[in-house]
Amino acid sequence: MNPAIKIVGVGLIGTSLGLALARKGVIASLSDHSKANLGLAIEYGAGIEFSDEPDLVIVCVPPDLTAKIVCEQLESHKNAVVTDVASVKVSIAKEVQLLSGLDSSRYVGSHPMAGRETAGPKGARADLFFARPWVITPHESCPVSQVELVTELALMLDALPVVMSSEEHDRSVALVSHLPQLVSSALAARLSSGSTADLNLAGQGLRDTTRIAASDPDLWLQILSQNSAAIGPLLLEFSKDINALVESFQNSDDSGSLAVIHALLASGNQGVSAIPGKHGGKYLEYKAVTALIDDSPGALAALLTFVGEIGVNLEDIKLEHSPGAAIGLVEMQVLPGIQEKLMAQLVQNGWRLA
Amino acid sequence: MNPAIKIVGVGLIGTSLGLALARKGVIASLSDHSKANLGLAIEYGAGIEFSDEPDLVIVCVPPDLTAKIVCEQLESHKNAVVTDVASVKVSIAKEVQLLSGLDSSRYVGSHPMAGRETAGPKGARADLFFARPWVITPHESCPVSQVELVTELALMLDALPVVMSSEEHDRSVALVSHLPQLVSSALAARLSSGSTADLNLAGQGLRDTTRIAASDPDLWLQILSQNSAAIGPLLLEFSKDINALVESFQNSDDSGSLAVIHALLASGNQGVSAIPGKHGGKYLEYKAVTALIDDSPGALAALLTFVGEIGVNLEDIKLEHSPGAAIGLVEMQVLPGIQEKLMAQLVQNGWRLA
Repeated sequence: MNPAIKIVGVGLIGTSLGLALARKGVIASLSDHSKANLGLAIEYGAGIEFSDEPDLVIVCVPPDLTAKIVCEQLESHKNAVVTDVASVKVSIAKEVQLLSGLDSSRYVGSHPMAGRETAGPKGARADLFFARPWVITPHESCPVSQVELVTELALMLDALPVVMSSEEHDRSVALVSHLPQLVSSALAARLSSGSTADLNLAGQGLRDTTRIAASDPDLWLQILSQNSAAIGPLLLEFSKDINALVESFQNSDDSGSLAVIHALLASGNQGVSAIPGKHGGKYLEYKAVTALIDDSPGALAALLTFVGEIGVNLEDIKLEHSPGAAIGLVEMQVLPGIQEKLMAQLVQNGWRLA
Repeated sequence: MNPAIKIVGVGLIGTSLGLALARKGVIASLSDHSKANLGLAIEYGAGIEFSDEPDLVIVCVPPDLTAKIVCEQLESHKNAVVTDVASVKVSIAKEVQLLSGLDSSRYVGSHPMAGRETAGPKGARADLFFARPWVITPHESCPVSQVELVTELALMLDALPVVMSSEEHDRSVALVSHLPQLVSSALAARLSSGSTADLNLAGQGLRDTTRIAASDPDLWLQILSQNSAAIGPLLLEFSKDINALVESFQNSDDSGSLAVIHALLASGNQGVSAIPGKHGGKYLEYKAVTALIDDSPGALAALLTFVGEIGVNLEDIKLEHSPGAAIGLVEMQVLPGIQEKLMAQLVQNGWRLA
């Protein structure tokens, strides 16, 4: 496969696509309404200014502009397949059909599930799509060859192509991405009622649950508002659970209320265990080994060098913050059978466990 | 200070206290209704069976038994100060006063903010309290000497003593610990409606927001039900925000509805920035540098050895999971001025950035 590829919009995703393609020997044509961004993307090596007639156009603009630009590209390049990278698919597909009529048969929606907290071409990375799902959402009468073109693009960039309908995509991301974003933001919003004394008692649990609440409100408003049909019902179900909890806490002497709270906590256990873990397998209950290190360059490396030397593979690792203390707690997650060995060897070799 | 200390209940916290005291040369007397747990804790070196009359009794039993056992200890040891370690304080203080009357003047509530996901003496660690807040909640007429005794205990175990009223404590933990637990559980509970296809698109955001939903429902029901007075109003405010969102998503074509959603997202940004970061300081916007490594023992260590050698101190680190791929993405958080240097040096030395 060696299609002529045009990338429209060289923000984070567009520039990353160009860099990733260049690494595979495919030089894309780039276009952007911002001459500054375009110049920067070209200087980075993400591609060249548009010249050849493209076989595939990838529209990488914000969600609320995507349909309009897709239609412009369908109009400009009569033989090209046009795809996009927006995080919502149904509303864009509908708008494309509305605006361009029959011409829209050459449009194939897609969504590489990749991003970074740094916006714009400066945040671009050639490996952004590596091992990430890349959802492809063909319309019902879409020719197989068009789906194959986008699938080959995803595979070329080491992403994992997943074909589903726009409706399925939007329902899936509503559950695994959009609802968590809203819930995290709403939880973090409550912290405004807290004092410094309250927040000084914050632990890792609060930090984890509110991390994504730091995301860009403007971008997220576009995403969320375009997926309201899928988010609405999920949010309603969530609100019912929360409202039932509110009532239970108002009658917390009542055994029925306690049963409601317990059932929700147990249901949360079930939900977490349904999230696939590393390597695409079922969630494994890793065991934690927590060691203490000095908060200095090299201290973490020394610990992990030792861990590597004794042949232990870490499944996950986290540095925990200790308010007021210049020391780090390193939480290492390992497979259940490894925990005892790792702990014993660390202690024998002078490491302090927490 | 060399008080005679008795620990009642040798689960995770009690045994850890014994081990931490032993490391400082203080051998505690231990007691537990489970002879098996008691034997194990003694074998671990957490202390000896009760003999001497104690100056300080630390009650380390589940929240719903704490008041009863505190009263028994006040009765058994007429000259001892009695403290506890439960995650709720108002309800326990009230019940202690109700059950023991005037004798309760020798009770000083406390709450070391430490724990692990592994219950029982087997999970015990001598460093469990290291650099963690240890909240002390004296009643109004509590003699200073009693507060000092618990403060010295906290300092001896390298914890950070914080004195506040029971009411303040319960309000603080309702906000930074109990509300996040409920919200995370309620979010994770929604995943039961998801298919495998939905959950295969799960990213780090979902994993972070639902991690604590894996906590023990039985223990949490005790904690939550005993702090319903503080949790109730917070949960009500949270539910109002969620219900307003539900309404906004039902009218998402309306500009007023979009403004509600945007305001909540922005308010979430504010909330996150109010959480203190590492070293007790204000949250700093760290910059992320993400590198690719083989998923094999030693690969992470090699990366971090290099990072240490070039003198870069990591503020945080996270392994990202790539479904279906046997490779690791290592996200390293550094101070803003360090990011460019780290990235340049990594690339120059053959590391792959994501």
